[in-house]
Amino acid sequence: MVSSRATLPQVAELAGVSLASASRALHGTGASKAMVERVRAAADELGYQPDPAGRTLRMRRTFQIAFAVADIGNPVYVEMMSAIQGAVADRGYRLVVAATGDTAASTIDLVRGLAAGHVDGLVVSPLRITDDLVSELRECTVPVVVIGRSLEDAGISSVSTDSAGGIGAAVAHVLALGRRRIGFLNGPTDTTPGSARQRGFDEAVAGERFAAEVVDTQTADDFTVAAGVAAARTLLGRHEGAPLDAVVAANDLLAIGAIKAAREAGLNVPADLAVTGMDDTEIGQVYQPSLTSVSLRSAERGRLAAELMLRLLDEPSSGPATVFVEPELRVRESTREEKP
Amino acid sequence: MVSSRATLPQVAELAGVSLASASRALHGTGASKAMVERVRAAADELGYQPDPAGRTLRMRRTFQIAFAVADIGNPVYVEMMSAIQGAVADRGYRLVVAATGDTAASTIDLVRGLAAGHVDGLVVSPLRITDDLVSELRECTVPVVVIGRSLEDAGISSVSTDSAGGIGAAVAHVLALGRRRIGFLNGPTDTTPGSARQRGFDEAVAGERFAAEVVDTQTADDFTVAAGVAAARTLLGRHEGAPLDAVVAANDLLAIGAIKAAREAGLNVPADLAVTGMDDTEIGQVYQPSLTSVSLRSAERGRLAAELMLRLLDEPSSGPATVFVEPELRVRESTREEKP
Repeated sequence: MVSSRATLPQVAELAGVSLASASRALHGTGASKAMVERVRAAADELGYQPDPAGRTLRMRRTFQIAFAVADIGNPVYVEMMSAIQGAVADRGYRLVVAATGDTAASTIDLVRGLAAGHVDGLVVSPLRITDDLVSELRECTVPVVVIGRSLEDAGISSVSTDSAGGIGAAVAHVLALGRRRIGFLNGPTDTTPGSARQRGFDEAVAGERFAAEVVDTQTADDFTVAAGVAAARTLLGRHEGAPLDAVVAANDLLAIGAIKAAREAGLNVPADLAVTGMDDTEIGQVYQPSLTSVSLRSAERGRLAAELMLRLLDEPSSGPATVFVEPELRVRESTREEKP
Repeated sequence: MVSSRATLPQVAELAGVSLASASRALHGTGASKAMVERVRAAADELGYQPDPAGRTLRMRRTFQIAFAVADIGNPVYVEMMSAIQGAVADRGYRLVVAATGDTAASTIDLVRGLAAGHVDGLVVSPLRITDDLVSELRECTVPVVVIGRSLEDAGISSVSTDSAGGIGAAVAHVLALGRRRIGFLNGPTDTTPGSARQRGFDEAVAGERFAAEVVDTQTADDFTVAAGVAAARTLLGRHEGAPLDAVVAANDLLAIGAIKAAREAGLNVPADLAVTGMDDTEIGQVYQPSLTSVSLRSAERGRLAAELMLRLLDEPSSGPATVFVEPELRVRESTREEKP
């Protein structure tokens, strides 16, 4: 039997306010007088009766959602954060940002601390997803959404993308341009991004229709321009007699490093050397030549993670969900045959 | 008479923990067992007795500090935020980020909402500082620190810098290089940064020792690369017969726009045209040519704002403080005579 009792979401809908606002207005925690009147009118109209148990539960709400990432200053995370903040603020939630540091142990400490009554939910984008971290997230007392790889098997909601497939798309793009001597410039492979991107390149190269003549990989010490310049010098230097004609880089900063090293070596980008990046950063868009880059759509992933979180908060009985965001190759001057 | 009763700060000092941690440990809200034991031992040693009134007061603490800015995604604010988060997290506080939107009215709404029991303190960097906003900040029930201009007169703690003086430093730099035909590329002058930077240029040009032959100002529609390209085309186009030899831009994105427009016009940067920016962004550092830029030291301002806030929280009786951060010119390829 379906109960005909009015629910809080119905009251919120009729009042035209967020669930968070409706809850606050009815439970007397921090709503404006006008909001209280509006929500009470809707509750009266529907004959809504808050049940005491539910009320206690809801009163314990903090109306805060945490976003935990290794490095708050990283542009990729900034895009996510900005999207999450916008989405949750629209529904009356505040966003708490927390830096996890780059170890799983420090991430676990932080998750435990935040879940202890400080936030209603936790969105986390870990640099390294270990078994211990997954266990901790499963035992979390508040809803969790992970931005990173799919954790469907572990029963944790997640928003994932396919950076390996994105590298594959970049390789296919330079092959389609007729480039046959391809270098891969990766960052450290002991990180989650580095290992996924290496796998993407290795899979692309192993593909049946792979048509390159030369394939060479060089790993940079870090995902930075400086490390990219140094590693690209080594990579290009190994092929001086018959130069590479394309470099696929694991992120935009490494790609810019490759362009700088190519210029030093007297190579024109893109005429002599096509270069691709990943992450589609503002730096790459503004650079000259502007950078062909695989977008992993950080803002979109942030927005979707916020939606999953809001649904878990509105309907605690809804199970974990998995959302996948397709990467997207954005072609710009660094791989266009026409000179910029 | 000075009371010899032990205080909570003394307990925290003896235990070697933050005031926030000591308060939590003694009031049983979210401290680890080891922390509680350590702080209790220090309290016992000092004969510390929490007074009931103070205890109530402290128990109402949220251990949260808010950082409110117009646009969370703006790299200048990201640097501040990252510095504030690091500094307050070290002392046991969480950072709540909030987007104010770009009007004073929306900022006032947000300040009111956050101050209503959700945070212990508010760091705000408003895009426009109006009289209404200043009144609201003065009446705030929690400590406030403003990052922007000095609000010493209003009795509000602030961290300020001198963007006008920074533009003056850029003008002096290009004059010292022997450049005499100087363009100023500003953003919209109805914003706080735009009006301050315009004032800086006007003051520099009015200075006694100012030695330029030609001075011309062009305002772009926005502080972006695209708006900078369009405005720089107009600016450079007005001097085709006797070209400008320097462009001082009001931020790095406008400066990059100026470099792109200069290239279109067949001008070499820096040989024909020296270009300076402001904000010292990563984009400018990585650009080719790398950009000479005035750093307004966002991370330093964020760190100092966090310190002021923590002091106001530790010693509520301490008055408002004003801190000034000197801008710093960072010379790179876009004004070096040697070709990059």
